[in-house]
Amino acid sequence: RARLARVILSPLFQRTVVGLILLNAVTLGLETSNVVMASWGGLLLAIDRVLLVIFTAEIALRIYAFRGRFFRDPWGIFDLLVVGIAWLPATGPLSVLRALRVLRVLRLVSVVPSLRNVVEAMLAALPGMGSIVLLMLLIFYVAAVMAVKLFGGAMPEQFGDLGTAFFTLFQLMAMDDFGNVVREAMEHSPLAWLFFIPFSVVATFVVLNLFIGVIVESIQT
Amino acid sequence: RARLARVILSPLFQRTVVGLILLNAVTLGLETSNVVMASWGGLLLAIDRVLLVIFTAEIALRIYAFRGRFFRDPWGIFDLLVVGIAWLPATGPLSVLRALRVLRVLRLVSVVPSLRNVVEAMLAALPGMGSIVLLMLLIFYVAAVMAVKLFGGAMPEQFGDLGTAFFTLFQLMAMDDFGNVVREAMEHSPLAWLFFIPFSVVATFVVLNLFIGVIVESIQT
Amino acid sequence: RARLARVILSPLFQRTVVGLILLNAVTLGLETSNVVMASWGGLLLAIDRVLLVIFTAEIALRIYAFRGRFFRDPWGIFDLLVVGIAWLPATGPLSVLRALRVLRVLRLVSVVPSLRNVVEAMLAALPGMGSIVLLMLLIFYVAAVMAVKLFGGAMPEQFGDLGTAFFTLFQLMAMDDFGNVVREAMEHSPLAWLFFIPFSVVATFVVLNLFIGVIVESIQT
Amino acid sequence: RARLARVILSPLFQRTVVGLILLNAVTLGLETSNVVMASWGGLLLAIDRVLLVIFTAEIALRIYAFRGRFFRDPWGIFDLLVVGIAWLPATGPLSVLRALRVLRVLRLVSVVPSLRNVVEAMLAALPGMGSIVLLMLLIFYVAAVMAVKLFGGAMPEQFGDLGTAFFTLFQLMAMDDFGNVVREAMEHSPLAWLFFIPFSVVATFVVLNLFIGVIVESIQT
Ligand code: NA
Ligand code: NA
Repeated sequence: RARLARVILSPLFQRTVVGLILLNAVTLGLETSNVVMASWGGLLLAIDRVLLVIFTAEIALRIYAFRGRFFRDPWGIFDLLVVGIAWLPATGPLSVLRALRVLRVLRLVSVVPSLRNVVEAMLAALPGMGSIVLLMLLIFYVAAVMAVKLFGGAMPEQFGDLGTAFFTLFQLMAMDDFGNVVREAMEHSPLAWLFFIPFSVVATFVVLNLFIGVIVESIQT
Repeated sequence: RARLARVILSPLFQRTVVGLILLNAVTLGLETSNVVMASWGGLLLAIDRVLLVIFTAEIALRIYAFRGRFFRDPWGIFDLLVVGIAWLPATGPLSVLRALRVLRVLRLVSVVPSLRNVVEAMLAALPGMGSIVLLMLLIFYVAAVMAVKLFGGAMPEQFGDLGTAFFTLFQLMAMDDFGNVVREAMEHSPLAWLFFIPFSVVATFVVLNLFIGVIVESIQT
Repeated sequence: RARLARVILSPLFQRTVVGLILLNAVTLGLETSNVVMASWGGLLLAIDRVLLVIFTAEIALRIYAFRGRFFRDPWGIFDLLVVGIAWLPATGPLSVLRALRVLRVLRLVSVVPSLRNVVEAMLAALPGMGSIVLLMLLIFYVAAVMAVKLFGGAMPEQFGDLGTAFFTLFQLMAMDDFGNVVREAMEHSPLAWLFFIPFSVVATFVVLNLFIGVIVESIQT
Repeated sequence: RARLARVILSPLFQRTVVGLILLNAVTLGLETSNVVMASWGGLLLAIDRVLLVIFTAEIALRIYAFRGRFFRDPWGIFDLLVVGIAWLPATGPLSVLRALRVLRVLRLVSVVPSLRNVVEAMLAALPGMGSIVLLMLLIFYVAAVMAVKLFGGAMPEQFGDLGTAFFTLFQLMAMDDFGNVVREAMEHSPLAWLFFIPFSVVATFVVLNLFIGVIVESIQT
């Protein structure tokens, strides 16, 4: 078992896995083209299937070699999930699972140390930002409830229910189509700008605060 | 009175208030759905009413316990306002007050210490930014007056009066629909870009300066 | 003359000037409203005229008191220009000068020390950014020439000549209507994205670099 | 040869080259105007041709004087390429090469030391950002494959193949037309926002991280 662990951690093994993930990235990309699928579809799907078996075996080996340690490492769980998805039946209402198979390519992050470090630095900075994330959610929730009550009747497409209001507010925070949406709201309630301008200024500020906070924190790491 | 103050400041009391605010957030959210209101409307409004009474009692207790100190704390005034709104008659032209009731959920900020600290750090950074806020207002005011004089006649929808000009300039600062608005202005006065491009560059710069200033200041706190 | 200089620099004198500028800001703002002008037009224009005479006298006093020093101070030149504009004949093709009269309100920056300091800190940071400004101009110029040659024939509205190409590139740098403009270009030359995506990434980066450079520099001052 | 090198490095020689590049920038800019070309076309093209010969001779001199050192300097290769482009036949399918001739003006960067330093500082900061660039590419690739599979059938214009999906995702990252594109996707799959909102938040964050990382790094240099 210790010897197996040493093999798994060896550069050769790691590089082989990286190579196979890249190969799989290429085949998954080619599968998006109808022209390519028409002539090489069978081959691509066969490679995909073989790679899936290899990745599954690799993870099985790592679970056997590291046991509890595998499951305590969040990257282990991540690998298990993105490879495991492909084994779920992807028919009928679950056909969306087929599109999720490409998430497997994200394993590059867990396998290549430099990518892993970058992502870990970003994630490590998130907990210190918990209050700002909470504040953001609070602002969005309160604004969405208000928007439904104030503009839901007149503009159901934009503010008909909490879900659509959330979406429209996300869009307005980023100033996408701000002029058109808010001008329409002002036709119904002339003071609508008193709601939307403060919302988008505050929301943009809080998001920028969150982003810069995480970036500054992760640069210092 | 001192014993009451100790009860109010106890973790159990605080956690109960947080729980009730979260419960109220859920009921206020559910109230936005016509489907839910059709079957559970009576219950939701009843809970809302009970919670309003509890929050009012809680604030009354805090005023009784802390007296002058309650009113010297801006968060006390904040709590008083967002809870008090619900007691105003919300009929006729004041029906918009009903939508403001959800502001009550923002009390989470004043009750949860970590949120409070984040918001206080941001607000504490604002006074040092007073000059930049003033500069921003000055730029907007001068630009709005100029825009009405230069483009108000040809484009009344965008620059007909100071109010609409302010709104359109806010939109242009964020580069929303910049191309369409400025191209239309250039059809009437070909040199309009000489006004709008410098405006949006300077305004974006000053806003970014303001945001980054506050963020840097509040990170250092 | 020295006594006059002391009067001009006295807080009372300064505060009076600030008050008159603010009054003028209000009258200039009210002048944008047709309704207000219909009933109070005569009064507003009279106040405006009186204030112009006062400001002119104030500047004449400062020139008499400080002589050469007045003209060596860029803020002196600034005051002279924005007040002087109002004395130019604003008829016929020069009627745009009338709109420039509101620039007078910007004198608040030169009169209020805190505003002056903020603007001076920003301007002082610009020279150190000279190379980046130059780089920006170079990128825009080269991109505009290329855009005219590549897309001017097919999309004259956007890239017909250097001027319109500059404007459209400014718009694309800020990602305003990026999708529509570039998709139209790709209908004529399918590889147009190879030009526009790198342009907007590089231009956004250089502008952000310029803005952050100036902000960091001016914060440190 | 050493004397020739000294001449090439002399301020007079450098300033002459800068002057000629600026002259060429002007003629290339004037060539974009049909009106100017109608009356001065012959002269402009003649100047362009003479300048091309001069620049080619200059580079030949530098290759003769510095030999291997010329080719080991990336700016040497850069100069060689942007001047060399003009000697390629620009007829038929290669007529796009004619538009690339203006890239010659970018030689200002390699010739003016301050511009060169700025660009070198930015480029020097890029390798340290290699992991983030890789992460960005990975996110875009995975998202593009998923987008084709999920939305390619219903929205071929936006997500029909990997190329168009990449373009649309770039646009959505910058929140250009976000509302319209995602609302259309939600008509076909109501949960589409679960894909697009996280994508644009993560992509914006990673790009901002990359930009700020490079800027901070290049400021410290
Ligand atoms: Na837009
Ligand atoms: Na936009």
